Amino acid sequence: MLNIAVIGYGYWGPNMVRNFNEFGGTCVKYVCDQDEKQLARVKALYPAVALTSNLDEVLNDPDIDAISIATPVSTHFEIALKALEAGKHVLVEKPITDSSEKAEKLIETAIKYGKVLMVDHTFPYTGAVRKIKELIEKGDLGDIYYYDSIRVNLGLFQRDVDVIWDLAVHDLSIIDYILPHQPIAVSATGMSHVEGQPENIAYLTLFFSNNTIVHINVNWLAPVKVRLTLIGGTKKMIVYDDLEQSEKVKVYDKGIVIRSDDQDSLNRVRIEYRTGDMVAPRLESREPLEVEAEHILSCVRNRTRPRADGEAGYRVTRILEAAQRSIQRSGAPVCLEGD
Amino acid sequence: MLNIAVIGYGYWGPNMVRNFNEFGGTCVKYVCDQDEKQLARVKALYPAVALTSNLDEVLNDPDIDAISIATPVSTHFEIALKALEAGKHVLVEKPITDSSEKAEKLIETAIKYGKVLMVDHTFPYTGAVRKIKELIEKGDLGDIYYYDSIRVNLGLFQRDVDVIWDLAVHDLSIIDYILPHQPIAVSATGMSHVEGQPENIAYLTLFFSNNTIVHINVNWLAPVKVRLTLIGGTKKMIVYDDLEQSEKVKVYDKGIVIRSDDQDSLNRVRIEYRTGDMVAPRLESREPLEVEAEHILSCVRNRTRPRADGEAGYRVTRILEAAQRSIQRSGAPVCLEGD
Amino acid sequence: MLNIAVIGYGYWGPNMVRNFNEFGGTCVKYVCDQDEKQLARVKALYPAVALTSNLDEVLNDPDIDAISIATPVSTHFEIALKALEAGKHVLVEKPITDSSEKAEKLIETAIKYGKVLMVDHTFPYTGAVRKIKELIEKGDLGDIYYYDSIRVNLGLFQRDVDVIWDLAVHDLSIIDYILPHQPIAVSATGMSHVEGQPENIAYLTLFFSNNTIVHINVNWLAPVKVRLTLIGGTKKMIVYDDLEQSEKVKVYDKGIVIRSDDQDSLNRVRIEYRTGDMVAPRLESREPLEVEAEHILSCVRNRTRPRADGEAGYRVTRILEAAQRSIQRSGAPVCLEGD
Amino acid sequence: MLNIAVIGYGYWGPNMVRNFNEFGGTCVKYVCDQDEKQLARVKALYPAVALTSNLDEVLNDPDIDAISIATPVSTHFEIALKALEAGKHVLVEKPITDSSEKAEKLIETAIKYGKVLMVDHTFPYTGAVRKIKELIEKGDLGDIYYYDSIRVNLGLFQRDVDVIWDLAVHDLSIIDYILPHQPIAVSATGMSHVEGQPENIAYLTLFFSNNTIVHINVNWLAPVKVRLTLIGGTKKMIVYDDLEQSEKVKVYDKGIVIRSDDQDSLNRVRIEYRTGDMVAPRLESREPLEVEAEHILSCVRNRTRPRADGEAGYRVTRILEAAQRSIQRSGAPVCLEGD
Repeated sequence: MLNIAVIGYGYWGPNMVRNFNEFGGTCVKYVCDQDEKQLARVKALYPAVALTSNLDEVLNDPDIDAISIATPVSTHFEIALKALEAGKHVLVEKPITDSSEKAEKLIETAIKYGKVLMVDHTFPYTGAVRKIKELIEKGDLGDIYYYDSIRVNLGLFQRDVDVIWDLAVHDLSIIDYILPHQPIAVSATGMSHVEGQPENIAYLTLFFSNNTIVHINVNWLAPVKVRLTLIGGTKKMIVYDDLEQSEKVKVYDKGIVIRSDDQDSLNRVRIEYRTGDMVAPRLESREPLEVEAEHILSCVRNRTRPRADGEAGYRVTRILEAAQRSIQRSGAPVCLEGD
Repeated sequence: MLNIAVIGYGYWGPNMVRNFNEFGGTCVKYVCDQDEKQLARVKALYPAVALTSNLDEVLNDPDIDAISIATPVSTHFEIALKALEAGKHVLVEKPITDSSEKAEKLIETAIKYGKVLMVDHTFPYTGAVRKIKELIEKGDLGDIYYYDSIRVNLGLFQRDVDVIWDLAVHDLSIIDYILPHQPIAVSATGMSHVEGQPENIAYLTLFFSNNTIVHINVNWLAPVKVRLTLIGGTKKMIVYDDLEQSEKVKVYDKGIVIRSDDQDSLNRVRIEYRTGDMVAPRLESREPLEVEAEHILSCVRNRTRPRADGEAGYRVTRILEAAQRSIQRSGAPVCLEGD
Repeated sequence: MLNIAVIGYGYWGPNMVRNFNEFGGTCVKYVCDQDEKQLARVKALYPAVALTSNLDEVLNDPDIDAISIATPVSTHFEIALKALEAGKHVLVEKPITDSSEKAEKLIETAIKYGKVLMVDHTFPYTGAVRKIKELIEKGDLGDIYYYDSIRVNLGLFQRDVDVIWDLAVHDLSIIDYILPHQPIAVSATGMSHVEGQPENIAYLTLFFSNNTIVHINVNWLAPVKVRLTLIGGTKKMIVYDDLEQSEKVKVYDKGIVIRSDDQDSLNRVRIEYRTGDMVAPRLESREPLEVEAEHILSCVRNRTRPRADGEAGYRVTRILEAAQRSIQRSGAPVCLEGD
Repeated sequence: MLNIAVIGYGYWGPNMVRNFNEFGGTCVKYVCDQDEKQLARVKALYPAVALTSNLDEVLNDPDIDAISIATPVSTHFEIALKALEAGKHVLVEKPITDSSEKAEKLIETAIKYGKVLMVDHTFPYTGAVRKIKELIEKGDLGDIYYYDSIRVNLGLFQRDVDVIWDLAVHDLSIIDYILPHQPIAVSATGMSHVEGQPENIAYLTLFFSNNTIVHINVNWLAPVKVRLTLIGGTKKMIVYDDLEQSEKVKVYDKGIVIRSDDQDSLNRVRIEYRTGDMVAPRLESREPLEVEAEHILSCVRNRTRPRADGEAGYRVTRILEAAQRSIQRSGAPVCLEGD
């Protein structure tokens, strides 16, 4: 049994508490929040859970094995660092920190103290994304031509992050999980429509060393909610609509066949189209956070690396930082040096 | 009665012939094509129409008032130029030419010979786009935050143009028609997935002198066909789905209200959401080419400027050229000098 | 403050408990269920609520003002009767009882003891159905031609009721609420596909004294979930899709105009079509059970008649009984005598 | 080469002419219509086709092999009879005649003169319906539980037929083609909302000797167009949406598993649900009328029975007649005696 303290009971914290409670192998001992009102909500639902606004009280309790952080992004680093130094395993809500430098520091600290550092990249734990990864790894799609996502709605304007750090982080955590390579450069554009506020609309293009291209469209000011991702491969293509009730992932046996009419000229290729059946595979329907609870438990027990570890959190923040720099330069590409 | 010769009877030419024939005020006298097979198709359907593979024969016929060009883009300029110099009015399929320089030359020639030069930007003649322009001009949307379009399908790979010149040109002709301002810079990214071929996937961002932003997503390699445009304004927002049978344009009474909690700090604004009814206005259902036929006739008669004239064609080609340059620079912005 | 005991904590009971707890004016004092496991679930979530498997204990508690019944249909009558005789107000989940005769008995008893008898017809408390009733009452739709509903999915096969008593009851409660007249006859057909089990698929047609017609299609064995209702009127028509996220109700300004070409012959009428805008009005989004909680409170306080009272429950059960008889006669119409 | 005369150039005739012309093995020699305007339309499109308003002229021409009839239903019988007696093969638009008695007479006549009698039941020639038949015959669906179709729109009110004869005939021709058995009884309800006019809304239920049930919902007064058919089987289920662009047929690996908890009691069965992948098989996209043209040619050449022969036309009209009688009796079942 893994004893967990959940820090922050705002938007995401309640889901963490509910899931760690319902899942057999984990148990929520504390909920820590600065807001008395939030703690009262916990008391009504979970009378057995200890409540506090004092983080140190939690960290000093030897019964606590792990800390689950769902506070504002700007506070992730400080809390996670103290928790690791106090010898606790750490699960941090995405994004892991508000800078890649801080993410690196957390990774080092986790290694130094031999603790599990896991970032709560939710989508890699969904049935849909796991099925997509499975199809890519089996080679069903062939080589990946592109990943093209639109993630828009009339959204909660965030105070401390822009739309990239709020929404694009989801797609970045997905491609970090499903694609075999890392991007080498980013071009991003965006706009703020509220004076003095961060970007509420943005477009990212990621370049790779091969001819894969990734594009992400995020928008807090859309009249309708859209969660649509197209993935094109040399063999098959996927339409992933996260708003669909049951058929979230549709696999199309479609593509092009390139015939070179005469050998000595590439301009003379003939492109033919191929169309076969469409299949919407049955998806695992367990709640992602339950899968995560199970995963962190086994990582702690077996000292294994989490699916989404500190490194994954770091890679994502580096892309987010590069995208922000590119936006400031109206789309001029920014290299992800060191890749 | 306006006597017309249609040059090129491939993909679009047949629509031109059918519409100019059905419309009362115009009459197709000639169809000119290099391919005997195509001319045979015309003969079967329109026995009265003269057939030729010789452009000069058409241009030398004094009975011909106007030339309608539906040949490959690379040939638009030469044919249009000869036609204007022969004293014919000219309608050119989009894009007007394969370079803005040639477009300028056509504009000058049209002025010199006092002839109508009209580019076949189809969408501004559809009921949907005309309704959107009407709503914007009436101020129903308020100031425009963004125009965001996705125009993808498993498409005809073109030989002589890339996906931008083939698909993005539609959105560029739409914004040229509906938006009050011209873009000042372009950032574009894209990729070719067939060696030696032009880009088959591309993303354009257009910047304006105000905080309007335009984004266009075009793709020849998508498993499904999508024609979806979101338009956000300070007052209302539009979802324009061109694949919808009847409700192509949906107007959402949605938006944000910005309240500044205290005067001396903009960071302290509070953003509230507003949601009202959605209205799908009834749209005019006439075929665009019929509206165009009527339009060119009245332009010729009244010596008035076409809705989509040479200047519009020129502005669109300039943006296309800038987008291509930006793609070669991985998204680095390219200014549209002189705006 | 209205003190409530919820009887039955299976599928619907938990919603009742949650809503009566969250709503300010009501408070859940007891939950009564035969199943210890269910009571344990209550204990975990609501430690303050008293638990019992003994109905009399609840009915004998003078602090209890009202009983909310969410037990199997076959037990509704006995529990409701005892509760009314014990001087408690009663809310019964739909359908009110398993026979119209029992429903009549409950109505008499409620009158005799001067207590509120309310049936939990959920849909009349939804924003969608309330908006539809508002539009009909304002005369926006004109006279009602038809109400045509399809309510199918791969559903929970019920043991004690067939698909009509399980699903069609929703549509019957809706038309009882929104239509100005009562049906005079029913024709119904159906089939059981599991030997020895009640009908799992059924089709109802309701006739009225005017030319209104109501049709209901219910099915427990459908591969997809559909909740689609078409309502046609002389002036406007409605598409009500309960699975839509936001635009559940779409009002179409469509219809026919009947022109009689010459007076002396009705066969010679000319029918023309009319098409205008479509409007999806903004809907109230409060949870129905919260609205119901507020409603029963005001009914108790002001001794007013509930929107869905015992009479409504009785009218619905009479139609259900008639439909069952018609199904046994392969669709032969059954009169709703006394209407 | 089969020489064909098309009788009637109203709504459907032009499709017949176009298809018989484009298809290699058939040739349209005559178009016969009472309306000069219609004949003028033919002349413009097909100068080579002979035009006449005199049926006998056509029937007396020995070069004519077959007659294709697209006139109002009430005239089908007389024209088809004369054509068969004149030794011509006959293709009649659906429904074959306005009574089953006349259909029988045509069948006899066709046999007597040894000519092909084929009814233009379009849907059995579509890729979608042929795929559905293939899946049923292969046993993929198992035994058929139900066929449930909704076919509604704001439709052309017909003068000489009601909505059943206009729309339900499509579903009846489909089930006649795909289902292994014939219905034994019909219950139907409906309503006319225009005084003196036939029913514009109707609901049919067909009963079979096994527990298959068929339901058809047709409506000329719907605000939206719906063409949705659900087909449930013991093994798999189909959703057939004819308005879908590409995935018209979706096959769901869904169903129920019936477990009898104890042998001696059927009421004690436990029903479990099964959910697997969904597959939208690739469909043949050829135009139905082209397939029909090919089919009639091979039937004439090889003296084989058409897929939809006079017998099929007869079976459909018998059900239509029974449905009308049932509607007059408010849904009372009408037997299809002799089945």
